[in-house]
Amino acid sequence: MDNSDSWLEIIRHSAAHVMAEAVLGLFPDAKFAIGPSIEDGFYYDFDLPRTLTPDDLPVIEERMREITASRQAFQRRQLTRDQAQALFANQPYKLELIDELPEDDISIYTLGEFTDLCRGPHVEHSGQIGAFKLIRTAGAYWRGDESRPMLQRIYGVAFETQAELEAHLEKVAEAAKRDHRKLGKELDLFSVHEEIGPGLVCWHPNGAMVRQLVEDFWKREHHSRGYGIVYTPHIGKLDQWKQSGHWEFYRENLYAPMDVDGQQYLLKPMNCLGHILIYKSRLRSYRELPIRMAELGTVYRYERGGVLYGLTRVRGFTQDDAHIFCRQDQIRDEVVGVIELAQFMMETFGFHDYKLVLATRPDKYAGTAEVWEYATASLTAALESLGLTYEEDPGGGAFYGPKIDVKLADAMGRDWQGPTIQVDFNLPQRFDVCYIGEDGGEHLVTMIHRTVLGSMERFFACLVEHYGGAFPVWLSPVQARIVPIADRHIEYALRLEETLKKSDLRVDADCRSERMGFKIRDAQMAKVPYMLIVGDKEIESEGVSVRMRSGEDIGLRSIDEVQERIRSAIDSRS
Amino acid sequence: MDNSDSWLEIIRHSAAHVMAEAVLGLFPDAKFAIGPSIEDGFYYDFDLPRTLTPDDLPVIEERMREITASRQAFQRRQLTRDQAQALFANQPYKLELIDELPEDDISIYTLGEFTDLCRGPHVEHSGQIGAFKLIRTAGAYWRGDESRPMLQRIYGVAFETQAELEAHLEKVAEAAKRDHRKLGKELDLFSVHEEIGPGLVCWHPNGAMVRQLVEDFWKREHHSRGYGIVYTPHIGKLDQWKQSGHWEFYRENLYAPMDVDGQQYLLKPMNCLGHILIYKSRLRSYRELPIRMAELGTVYRYERGGVLYGLTRVRGFTQDDAHIFCRQDQIRDEVVGVIELAQFMMETFGFHDYKLVLATRPDKYAGTAEVWEYATASLTAALESLGLTYEEDPGGGAFYGPKIDVKLADAMGRDWQGPTIQVDFNLPQRFDVCYIGEDGGEHLVTMIHRTVLGSMERFFACLVEHYGGAFPVWLSPVQARIVPIADRHIEYALRLEETLKKSDLRVDADCRSERMGFKIRDAQMAKVPYMLIVGDKEIESEGVSVRMRSGEDIGLRSIDEVQERIRSAIDSRS
Repeated sequence: MDNSDSWLEIIRHSAAHVMAEAVLGLFPDAKFAIGPSIEDGFYYDFDLPRTLTPDDLPVIEERMREITASRQAFQRRQLTRDQAQALFANQPYKLELIDELPEDDISIYTLGEFTDLCRGPHVEHSGQIGAFKLIRTAGAYWRGDESRPMLQRIYGVAFETQAELEAHLEKVAEAAKRDHRKLGKELDLFSVHEEIGPGLVCWHPNGAMVRQLVEDFWKREHHSRGYGIVYTPHIGKLDQWKQSGHWEFYRENLYAPMDVDGQQYLLKPMNCLGHILIYKSRLRSYRELPIRMAELGTVYRYERGGVLYGLTRVRGFTQDDAHIFCRQDQIRDEVVGVIELAQFMMETFGFHDYKLVLATRPDKYAGTAEVWEYATASLTAALESLGLTYEEDPGGGAFYGPKIDVKLADAMGRDWQGPTIQVDFNLPQRFDVCYIGEDGGEHLVTMIHRTVLGSMERFFACLVEHYGGAFPVWLSPVQARIVPIADRHIEYALRLEETLKKSDLRVDADCRSERMGFKIRDAQMAKVPYMLIVGDKEIESEGVSVRMRSGEDIGLRSIDEVQERIRSAIDSRS
Repeated sequence: MDNSDSWLEIIRHSAAHVMAEAVLGLFPDAKFAIGPSIEDGFYYDFDLPRTLTPDDLPVIEERMREITASRQAFQRRQLTRDQAQALFANQPYKLELIDELPEDDISIYTLGEFTDLCRGPHVEHSGQIGAFKLIRTAGAYWRGDESRPMLQRIYGVAFETQAELEAHLEKVAEAAKRDHRKLGKELDLFSVHEEIGPGLVCWHPNGAMVRQLVEDFWKREHHSRGYGIVYTPHIGKLDQWKQSGHWEFYRENLYAPMDVDGQQYLLKPMNCLGHILIYKSRLRSYRELPIRMAELGTVYRYERGGVLYGLTRVRGFTQDDAHIFCRQDQIRDEVVGVIELAQFMMETFGFHDYKLVLATRPDKYAGTAEVWEYATASLTAALESLGLTYEEDPGGGAFYGPKIDVKLADAMGRDWQGPTIQVDFNLPQRFDVCYIGEDGGEHLVTMIHRTVLGSMERFFACLVEHYGGAFPVWLSPVQARIVPIADRHIEYALRLEETLKKSDLRVDADCRSERMGFKIRDAQMAKVPYMLIVGDKEIESEGVSVRMRSGEDIGLRSIDEVQERIRSAIDSRS
């Protein structure tokens, strides 16, 4: 028995056996494949005489409840391979698994009528299993191999208590409501079109406005922290990607080259090489360093169609990229600066919960061991000077240098890839990126690659889900919507719209001939932070009635007061 | 004799003959090709026994002066082809030309020793030629054909008076000083690298800052005028470019397609198709129209290497593109809006001199004659309602709709391509781009393509040359440079830098251990609008001495006063 499994994993794995027993009761000819515990629950893959429908799940679940209520024992036995093969003679998938097991150390578990090849451990009896629920069915190839039979998989979730199960189901329902693909449609934020191609995103005006606000904020912050912002082309000669090593090491993620005047050109997968050429466009002295070069650079990387997903896994994306060209003795201070910038950005967007991971030298590496040691010590010193706790991932660095990764937790507690800071000893060498030192000689520069948001696409997906589409006022595509109650209030509404627009607020007026309730629901669906309702009373007092997207009624307010309220929400970025 | 030639053209053409006579005197075996008048002057192509050097030009020019001083007559004779062939028996290029002339109508002109095949007209005698100057030599293939002999071309300029010639030479020298390729290096604005490929531009921080300021301004203006700003991918399936007709009609300007998952993808040459897909992502009602969709969209078009030039002729460029989807009856008002926006933008950037051209229906066209008539009338009505004068270019429209082109004149009086407004009846049909009309039925939308700046690359080149690199304060990458006189003034300089940065000014401090004169020259070379000099006197009075890039000394001023002065220059965009 392996003690590394947690009690929750044991419960979940045992629930898979309970489900298998229930399926066996319904389908005596069922062939069984595998049934492990997974995050939040379990699944089992079956080969069944007919396709399951959603209606089957409650029936199977009901039989499972009978099994858990009857507190059946899990009985373990140890067999030789011959004995196991005899026992599972009718179960081809099990036989295939048995072939791969050691001769004399094959364990099986029996639960009621169902006996499974299984290493365990399990609960003692099915009454210990706690709360579970079957979620959905899916097709799954035996061993994940498209040339093998397609099996039917049933997914379930399981927890120790009913309360935990319900909390989980609620969280899942909430996550579904916040799904950026769903909100992307509902809020008219972005689209992906078969006509253009999978993984290539069109940003609609609403989504593009949020992106632009994020980009503007990003540019301002970078400029004020001494970054020079640049633009470099999306294509370039393949030769430079051969020189960099990308063609050799990452070829399966690169697009096919195209021919221009008899030369091969490539869509850029990274922004580094353009930045290096700008750096090298003149001699650089040690006195000029560090040089910080940033770009909102759109890159294209090939991903298999099957892994593409909404905005989080795409083929074209805009990195908030930067490269810092510095001397070795500047690494520490530069990393401190990057972390401080990253912290400021994360806090601004409401991510207060994150963890840092320092990945160190792998077995194969570029540069010397001394250089690695120095750089890793610089990263450590940076983290420590900021009083930050971090995990270490020994040997987890890329071959070209150590790095710091930040993982964000969103409002739902789910992890997102956050800022990364990557030291690079490889490219300066391959492209001879130098500075003139105090000694008058040429020295290789140290490069630090870093992103703070990652990519605009993934970060935007994260924001959408984090805020559930209800962007804070400073990021809302429409900050306030004016709702005239009747046609006679339209003129006042339009004048008010003009006034607020002149104050640089993003406002519109819904002057359709619809009932007020309808228009308010519409604004709430669009997650507009402020609804400004205009009727006789409001016109008479030269004000508006303010309603929040939460449903909260603020009541009648003067125009000045409303402007001030919105302005203060914008300025505080809350 | 053809009377369409102006006196200036006649002078220039005659000067070419004078130059040919001078060359004949120096090279009795010279073979003569052609020698026309061109803008500002003339050239002649010669086949000579040796390559000309720059030293030859003054010698030739001197002989030309002797010829003009001696007032030689231009004598015309009419020959048959046989006579002409006999006369030019030693001149193979002339013989080739004679073959293409009519049997009995071949004219020749004799000037001193030199007789040329020539239709004329010419001045009566060489004394009438006025002022001229030889400028440079260049290689030129006979008849522009790379498989024919390479000849030597001498360029000259000629004007009626010496004063006009000198004004022209001065203008050329000034243009050379303002050349955006030269200033691009001097001011560290951009670069093009063989490693990436010709025609593909890297924007350095200084140039990118100007571009970003232009883009920010552009976005703000577009947003406030009801445009939705979008982003669409740089690549997409080739099929859509077949459907649009681009593959058929503009193939030689498209990049080679690349294979992705067995499908052909293309770098986008235009932004239209992404915008159409966003438009079509849901049903559109007549009430929603017009929909104005704008993008700073980077497109890639193949141009032959030989025509690439600085930032004005490139292979990748960012259009300030927009598409207006509207009903036919909205064309007029939309065009008025675009022209007003264009005028505002042009005025803001200091272009007060421009002309409009309306291009109308060509022989081959998409859509019906009625639709064309209606749209052309709408464009005319728009121009007239704004009280604008315009030229007409009959039949000069694209096959898919009439358009308005605007030509800008820069500070040197040179023409630049400005805004274009293009009605399109073709794409809505090809992509079935519709709206639901008041009648509940589907109707084809009218599309208006428009750019106001053209491309960021060309517009930036135009700005650089227009301002001679001395950008107005609001566009200057660095608005003020603080110059401490001695090391003891550095602390005050750095504090001042912080203060001004906090007021959102782009400021730096030159704290190098160099003499003040050196640092000021440096700042002037960099065309920094304000130099803020800091010494004992300034620190004592808590101020700075202000010096403008023009060299003007403003004297000692308080910090507040300086801030106000800079801020007011920024706000007025002057």
